[in-house]
Amino acid sequence: MTYCIGLKLEGGLVLLSDTRTNAGVDNVSRYRKMFTWEVPDDRALAVLTAGNLSITQGVITRLNRAIVDFKSDPERECILNAESMFRVAQIVGDTLRDLQERHRQSLEAQGAGADASLILAGQRAGGSHRLYLIYSAGNFVEATDDTPFFQLGEHKYGKPILDRVITPQTPIPIALKAAMVSMDSTLRSNLSVGMPLDLAVIPTGALAFAVRRRIEPDDAEFQNISAEWSNALRNAFDSLPEVVASG
Amino acid sequence: MTYCIGLKLEGGLVLLSDTRTNAGVDNVSRYRKMFTWEVPDDRALAVLTAGNLSITQGVITRLNRAIVDFKSDPERECILNAESMFRVAQIVGDTLRDLQERHRQSLEAQGAGADASLILAGQRAGGSHRLYLIYSAGNFVEATDDTPFFQLGEHKYGKPILDRVITPQTPIPIALKAAMVSMDSTLRSNLSVGMPLDLAVIPTGALAFAVRRRIEPDDAEFQNISAEWSNALRNAFDSLPEVVASG
Repeated sequence: MTYCIGLKLEGGLVLLSDTRTNAGVDNVSRYRKMFTWEVPDDRALAVLTAGNLSITQGVITRLNRAIVDFKSDPERECILNAESMFRVAQIVGDTLRDLQERHRQSLEAQGAGADASLILAGQRAGGSHRLYLIYSAGNFVEATDDTPFFQLGEHKYGKPILDRVITPQTPIPIALKAAMVSMDSTLRSNLSVGMPLDLAVIPTGALAFAVRRRIEPDDAEFQNISAEWSNALRNAFDSLPEVVASG
Repeated sequence: MTYCIGLKLEGGLVLLSDTRTNAGVDNVSRYRKMFTWEVPDDRALAVLTAGNLSITQGVITRLNRAIVDFKSDPERECILNAESMFRVAQIVGDTLRDLQERHRQSLEAQGAGADASLILAGQRAGGSHRLYLIYSAGNFVEATDDTPFFQLGEHKYGKPILDRVITPQTPIPIALKAAMVSMDSTLRSNLSVGMPLDLAVIPTGALAFAVRRRIEPDDAEFQNISAEWSNALRNAFDSLPEVVASG
C-alpha cells in the first residue's frame, strides 16, 4: 500500500508521500512515489502515485518521454508546455487511462489489480495553484475550499487530524505539522506504509519548490514531531474528564 | 458499515458498538449490534456483530432459539449452559458458519456479500473472562496480553488511540475514555458509522454487567468527551514544535 497527502492552501501546495510498496506481505520494496518538475518562473509540478507500480512507473516514464520529445520538437505537447494546469491534469489522466487499457486485461487474468490513482499538484505562470485527484479511468476532481486536501492509499488512520486541522487558510508551517502527524499515525498503525518519506512545498506564486526533500528514518525533525505528538496526545487523553458510564 | 470495539483488560471487558447499517448510501437504518445475556452468579455474555445483517440477525435468533429449547429440555446445549467460554465461542462460530453455508450462494448470486464477523465477550463461573473474534468461516481467535482488543468494521480511524492507550493493565475508566475517543474519531470521519451507541462493561469476576446502556446523540457524557477531545487534540497539535522543513 501507500500513503500520500496533497494539501491545497491559500499559501501553497504541501505534498507528502511514503516509499513502501509491496506485492503481498513478503515482497516489500522501496520506491519513490513523488515526482517533481520545475521550470523556473514558468511552472512547478508534482505527481504522487498509488496503486499498481508497473502502471504508475509507466505513467511517469511516458510523461518524461513526452518532455524529451518536446525538447527536440517544441510543437509537441507535454506537461511542461501545456497551457493550463487543467490541461496538465488531462494529459496525466489520459496517460494513466492509456496504460490501464494496455495492461488491465492481462493483469486481471493473473489476478493482479491494475488500478492506480494519482495526485497532481502545481502552478504555472499566469494561473492559480491547483490540486487534482486523478482516478484509474483518467477522470479527475479538483480540490476546493470545501475539500482542501486529497489522500491516496491508506487514508483512514491519518484522516481525522487532517479533518480537524486543515482549512484553506491553514498556514504552511501548521499544514506541514498536520501532514507529518497524519503520516506518523499511519506509519504506526499500518505496516504497508513505511519510511523514508518525500516532502515538497510549492508556495503560491513562486512557480518553484520551496521544499523538496527526503525524510529518512533518522530525520531529527520528523522524529521530534513524532515523539512530541505521542506525548501531547497522551497528555490530551489524560486531560479528558473521567467517564462514569453508570447503568 | 459498522464500528465495534471489544477490550479485554485485567479489570474486565469493555464493549462499544454503533447502530448504523446501510445497503448502499441511500438505504440507511438503525439496528442494535450488541446482544447481551446474563445469568446472575453464573455468566455474562455479549456478542457484537458486523457484516451482512440478515446473517447476523440469523445468528442471534438461533442462539436465542437454542436458549428457549434448553429451558424446556435441560439436556440441550446453548450458550447459557455451555461448559466454557471456549465452547460458547464454538457454538457461536458454528452457528455463523451454518448460516453462511445456507445463504452464501444465493447472496453472492445477487452480488451481495455474505460475510459477517462477531466479537464474543464474557465470563462464566469457574473460568476467566475471555474475548474472541469470530470470523465468517466460524473459526476464531482470542485476545491475549499482546493483543488486548478487537475491532469490527471501520477500524482504521479509531485504531491509533487504542494502539497508544490500551494495555491489559489499563483501568476500566481509562479504557472507557479510550473507547469513546476511538468511536468519536470514527463517527467524525465515516458516515457509515452512526449514533446511538451501545456500551457494556463486564467486570472481572462479577458474572454480571456493571454497565449496559444506550448512548443517545444527546448523551451528556459522550458529548463532553467528544468536545473535550476536540479541544485537547487541538491544543496537543498546537503544542508541537514548529516545522522548518528547509530544503
